Amino acid sequence: MVQRRKRLLDTEAILDAALACVDDTGRLTMADLATRLGVSASSIYHHFSGRTAIVEALRERMATTIDLPPLDESDWGAQVSRWMLAYRRALAEHPSLIPLLNEQTMTAGSVLQAYESIAILLRRTGVPVREIVLWIGVLDCYALGAALDLAAPDEVWSLERDDLPALGEAITAAPRGRERADEAFALGLEALLTGLRHRLAA
Amino acid sequence: MVQRRKRLLDTEAILDAALACVDDTGRLTMADLATRLGVSASSIYHHFSGRTAIVEALRERMATTIDLPPLDESDWGAQVSRWMLAYRRALAEHPSLIPLLNEQTMTAGSVLQAYESIAILLRRTGVPVREIVLWIGVLDCYALGAALDLAAPDEVWSLERDDLPALGEAITAAPRGRERADEAFALGLEALLTGLRHRLAA
Repeated sequence: MVQRRKRLLDTEAILDAALACVDDTGRLTMADLATRLGVSASSIYHHFSGRTAIVEALRERMATTIDLPPLDESDWGAQVSRWMLAYRRALAEHPSLIPLLNEQTMTAGSVLQAYESIAILLRRTGVPVREIVLWIGVLDCYALGAALDLAAPDEVWSLERDDLPALGEAITAAPRGRERADEAFALGLEALLTGLRHRLAA
Repeated sequence: MVQRRKRLLDTEAILDAALACVDDTGRLTMADLATRLGVSASSIYHHFSGRTAIVEALRERMATTIDLPPLDESDWGAQVSRWMLAYRRALAEHPSLIPLLNEQTMTAGSVLQAYESIAILLRRTGVPVREIVLWIGVLDCYALGAALDLAAPDEVWSLERDDLPALGEAITAAPRGRERADEAFALGLEALLTGLRHRLAA
């Protein structure tokens, strides 16, 4: 019995349970996690130094599903776009995890490696060194927001009033649901990259 | 005593407590809310039909702090930017509320009125009717993500490795903390609007 429990409580099992806690309740506490695993909190501390380390391990695990930009001779904008698409998709799988990831300093190696690649791409295209982190922040904000947007209901607005004609007409004409979210994401990403190119040319 | 409790349990007191629940725990349950108010859940239902109605009332209350675009003859981009700045600031005051706001259909009147104004602005500047909702979605994603970014730690990345030279150099050269977040927000918003203008001109 002891052996079986020991086998079950490996780091992957803890991370699976932590993600389930976040998905179900929108938060992560060591007490909830211990209850879900059916162990004492102290046995979790045998594997992780605490909640921060668990969230960071979840970030690391998410990052390993995202291909790094190849940093080859292909268009830098296309490389950034592919990375952004994968990043948004990975974030959108667990939208409740987003605020947790966002509120702590990143130390996960794979994640830092991805930002290193983006920094290299932006430098190569001529972004001043002082602005690299700012543009990474812009991309991050947009990916986080777009991932949350994938969790929005198909019906974003409920209009039962006839005093909002412009919005009503726009909603009727627009795609809905996943198609709306995907088209909007592509449109905004293209606009961001166009804006950046325009700034670099100026 | 009964009278005092009745006076305390008005809709504003319920909304204050609901916001405190969300701020403290990252979630909102009727049970937690009743405990915090020291009342039974049924007395809350006397004021609100349920959790959805409470979240919607919080959205409405937030929206009333944001000035609507004047829809005057001033530059549409400047009108959108001012609204976005206020929207991000309001969202950032309660970042844990963001996922809750995002996951349900909007019915709050002041919020719908704001989107009506943005729809009118975008139509006037020549955005095709099918794309209005998409661009509103882009602005929304960016505002939500940027509001979350305000909750990020001053030190976004912790680099203790010397194999990430581009990122390391960029972090050293960049502004930090609130200054980083604000500059990035302005840069990205300008890029989005430039990209939109560019698309309209094409």
